[in-house]
Amino acid sequence: MKSLIVISAPSGAGKTTIAKRILAAHPDQLTFSISATTRPMRNGERDGVDYYFLSKEEFLHRIKENQLIEYEEIFGNFYGTLVSEIDRARAGGKSLIFDIDVKGGISIRARYPNDSLLIFIAPPSMEELYIRLMGRGSEDSETIDRRLARAEMEMEMKDVYDHIVVNDDLENAVKDVETLIFGR
Amino acid sequence: MKSLIVISAPSGAGKTTIAKRILAAHPDQLTFSISATTRPMRNGERDGVDYYFLSKEEFLHRIKENQLIEYEEIFGNFYGTLVSEIDRARAGGKSLIFDIDVKGGISIRARYPNDSLLIFIAPPSMEELYIRLMGRGSEDSETIDRRLARAEMEMEMKDVYDHIVVNDDLENAVKDVETLIFGR
Repeated sequence: MKSLIVISAPSGAGKTTIAKRILAAHPDQLTFSISATTRPMRNGERDGVDYYFLSKEEFLHRIKENQLIEYEEIFGNFYGTLVSEIDRARAGGKSLIFDIDVKGGISIRARYPNDSLLIFIAPPSMEELYIRLMGRGSEDSETIDRRLARAEMEMEMKDVYDHIVVNDDLENAVKDVETLIFGR
Repeated sequence: MKSLIVISAPSGAGKTTIAKRILAAHPDQLTFSISATTRPMRNGERDGVDYYFLSKEEFLHRIKENQLIEYEEIFGNFYGTLVSEIDRARAGGKSLIFDIDVKGGISIRARYPNDSLLIFIAPPSMEELYIRLMGRGSEDSETIDRRLARAEMEMEMKDVYDHIVVNDDLENAVKDVETLIFGR
């Protein structure tokens, strides 16, 4: 069993649901990777639970020290995965589940090629994905366009992953991902 | 002397001018890193000179094989640096100059911490940079806003670099960068 399990998918393909289901079924063997961020803490959030909340100065210092496995900057805030997160999981004897975008997943594999397993959750079809993304209804057309463009880019990169699981049926998809993680 | 010399700066800070000047003065010791891309070749461009032109399938395959030190996707096209580019420079006994964005530079250092030197070219002030970026005149306000936001983000990350050279005078900036590369 690999110690770093990356689950990625275009927005709307159901990856977070699948990841949560699998984690709930195997709490002694798996733990979610907690990201670090420089965005302000919101009401109800806890440091070390929802995120590791770092100052921008601290975050950039960690980048300089090569302590970020992957990171990105979104609207002026940084988000990323600390190397120490891997140490935390190892100390607890658990594998880490990463619910992360494609580029982040590839960065994890580049740094830990022998310890990582990259699983891509694909929607049954692009049409199905369009319907799901547009069906949320609350966004303006520019937001939807941007999300569709991003989904297309991520779908394009799916072959870079070790395995692709098509989420046409949630129960089957959960079983397929479990088999990839734990073996038969 | 380090074999991988990264020169980064926000757009408008004069980095490409500085890099070209230094390369022209030391052609036996330095060579420009040539990027790989999936964008179509334009009239007058040559494969292996302006870029290594790869199909998207080939590019993604190289990502999967961990042969891209860094890469990004811009409007559906991929751009990045192949590991083989480092081999090419080493075979010719030259150091590589990377004219590359901050995130790309940091990826190079993450992979080659002992062989890389990261130099950030900063404008004399943010006001000066705004004036230079807005002075180009041909773009709409949205393009300028996006470029300013990107420049601010890149300026914010400058402390992650090994050295910062302020480009208030081109001749002095060129000399400072030469000293950082070759020593006194």
